[in-house]
Amino acid sequence: MPNAADSSTNSEHVYAVIMAGGSGTRFWPISRAAAPKQLVRIVGDATMIQATVARLQPYIPAERVLIVTTAALAAETRRQLPALKPDHVIAEPVGRDTAACVALAALVINRIDPQGIMILLPADQVITPTVDFQAALAVGAATAQAGNLVTFGIQPRFAATGYGYIEVGAAVSSKDGISVNRVARFVEKPDQANAEKYLAAGTYRWNAGIFCWQASTVISELRQHCAWLMEALVPLEAAWGTAAWEKVLNDVYQPLKRISIDYALMEKSQRICVVTGTYQWDDVGSWDSLYDHLPADANGVISRGQTLPIDCHDSLLVSETGQLIAGIGLTGMSVIATKDAILVVPKGRSQEVKQVVDALKAQGRAELL
Amino acid sequence: MPNAADSSTNSEHVYAVIMAGGSGTRFWPISRAAAPKQLVRIVGDATMIQATVARLQPYIPAERVLIVTTAALAAETRRQLPALKPDHVIAEPVGRDTAACVALAALVINRIDPQGIMILLPADQVITPTVDFQAALAVGAATAQAGNLVTFGIQPRFAATGYGYIEVGAAVSSKDGISVNRVARFVEKPDQANAEKYLAAGTYRWNAGIFCWQASTVISELRQHCAWLMEALVPLEAAWGTAAWEKVLNDVYQPLKRISIDYALMEKSQRICVVTGTYQWDDVGSWDSLYDHLPADANGVISRGQTLPIDCHDSLLVSETGQLIAGIGLTGMSVIATKDAILVVPKGRSQEVKQVVDALKAQGRAELL
Repeated sequence: MPNAADSSTNSEHVYAVIMAGGSGTRFWPISRAAAPKQLVRIVGDATMIQATVARLQPYIPAERVLIVTTAALAAETRRQLPALKPDHVIAEPVGRDTAACVALAALVINRIDPQGIMILLPADQVITPTVDFQAALAVGAATAQAGNLVTFGIQPRFAATGYGYIEVGAAVSSKDGISVNRVARFVEKPDQANAEKYLAAGTYRWNAGIFCWQASTVISELRQHCAWLMEALVPLEAAWGTAAWEKVLNDVYQPLKRISIDYALMEKSQRICVVTGTYQWDDVGSWDSLYDHLPADANGVISRGQTLPIDCHDSLLVSETGQLIAGIGLTGMSVIATKDAILVVPKGRSQEVKQVVDALKAQGRAELL
Repeated sequence: MPNAADSSTNSEHVYAVIMAGGSGTRFWPISRAAAPKQLVRIVGDATMIQATVARLQPYIPAERVLIVTTAALAAETRRQLPALKPDHVIAEPVGRDTAACVALAALVINRIDPQGIMILLPADQVITPTVDFQAALAVGAATAQAGNLVTFGIQPRFAATGYGYIEVGAAVSSKDGISVNRVARFVEKPDQANAEKYLAAGTYRWNAGIFCWQASTVISELRQHCAWLMEALVPLEAAWGTAAWEKVLNDVYQPLKRISIDYALMEKSQRICVVTGTYQWDDVGSWDSLYDHLPADANGVISRGQTLPIDCHDSLLVSETGQLIAGIGLTGMSVIATKDAILVVPKGRSQEVKQVVDALKAQGRAELL
């Protein structure tokens, strides 16, 4: 099994940047506008962002973890992660898509450590085992140190239509099951027929939304491929660590145009690699995805909190309230109880939670959002 | 349509005795040991016992309504029915089956009004329309005044195996759709084949568990057919209205053998009639039965409290807590939320609520019972 210590990179210069500004509604009623999924316990006893930080240990210690989130969520994020430096929880004044977020983080890390290598990752994924993940990160960091822009790809397990794909190109290296390839192309979320083609081909990876590069490299690449963005952000470099930081950040951010890192850079740069590791990965996108992640009883019933399943099968019972959830004869049914709302939805339909949230919005029931 | 005023009985002598000592578990989690179904709101805005008393108005005013319940439930029963005389809510010290309950009530009413006619009825039925029911009661009272023991039968609507049946005998009278017949025989709950036979025959009625007789008649009949019981209860007559009542009641009740009014009297007496009326009747035995009694939306979804059904059909959503119940894509599903328990059970399986209660008992979770 590969080990992070095998990497030739000096890991003291490796930083993590967790992108945690999301406000997803797919885990309603547990996730809310004021407590989106990365800040609540969905899988396990830690919140998803706590788990994301823990998953990096010891390879990336807490003092080299940064989080980019929103102003509304920054205080709660700091509260949940007391080991992080408070100013490493950076609040974007407004959301301006991923390219701005990446540039902001790169400028900050470049100020902290001009040799800094940054691993960007979302706050709401489930990845196991940790040691395999860290080994792949170390390979990615070494690849990044050589001047590449690194993405992380997941060998598809089924013909998913919900993920973007990466077609791998020429092999760069392969060791201990971790392979590095050039990227042939990025592919948007496919239809079912194409997803099946990609699965059969064996040369496609799911795009995990995890990236790694040297801060100085991505700054230089963005200056080349998205110059207007880097010009707009110039004032940030001098403001980092000063009392003016928040005002300067707000001033430069507000007028920015929205652009994703994919459009701004990944689809243009010629120095992109993809690392395929040996870990299991899931983005935990909905209640249904929990059926794969939480331990079930002999009948396939997953219980959290007080539950009493009688002749229940393949079901998810989550009580956050102390209320006992008693189920009789349920098959493929999810029941989620929170203090002010109870969701009951069959397995396979949890994407429709969005309709509940939309209906509550339309009814002006902000207290339930 | 028949009218109670048409009856030749002087209704001033007609009393109601509501048997309300039950501790049914079939409406868990709303019904509990300390608040069985007659004392909670299952159908409509009144508790079932309040609805039962209201259903008798104006034919039997509150001052002529008595309730026989248990010591544990008497205080709550009086609280819910402030119009009743407090001593008309009689607490049996222990349950000794229906013959003792009938004899106790008959002795009390005979003391209050020697011409008293008593209508015995359970506290947990749904009967509509009220005017039809009262018309049938008036016919029953007139039949009872002539010295008969009267039962009330319901024309079967389907081949029910959950009710006892009454086979009707010779016609006594028929007017305004209300018929009186001699009783040919009582039949225990049948199997499916017999239930279908009874339904097809047209000469069988569901036994509604509602009775009517003159107090003096039933006392005399019980003295003839169940002498030991009436002998044991002799001390009650002198004790009614005195400070010794509770002690005497306890002393005579404790040693009684259990016997039902069916075995003690109904299957032996030769003076039994059955009244078949024009009202709709249901005993509301389980959550499933509510699908017939509560108003539903265009998709057949019954909502109480805060609910948000999305693409739901033929379902029952009851929130007693203020929690919003959001259902997505449910068909034939009942969801009942109370402050400490949430029940989710498919339509057709609500009888199995008993298994939940049994499991909670086995776990020693008295607070949920």
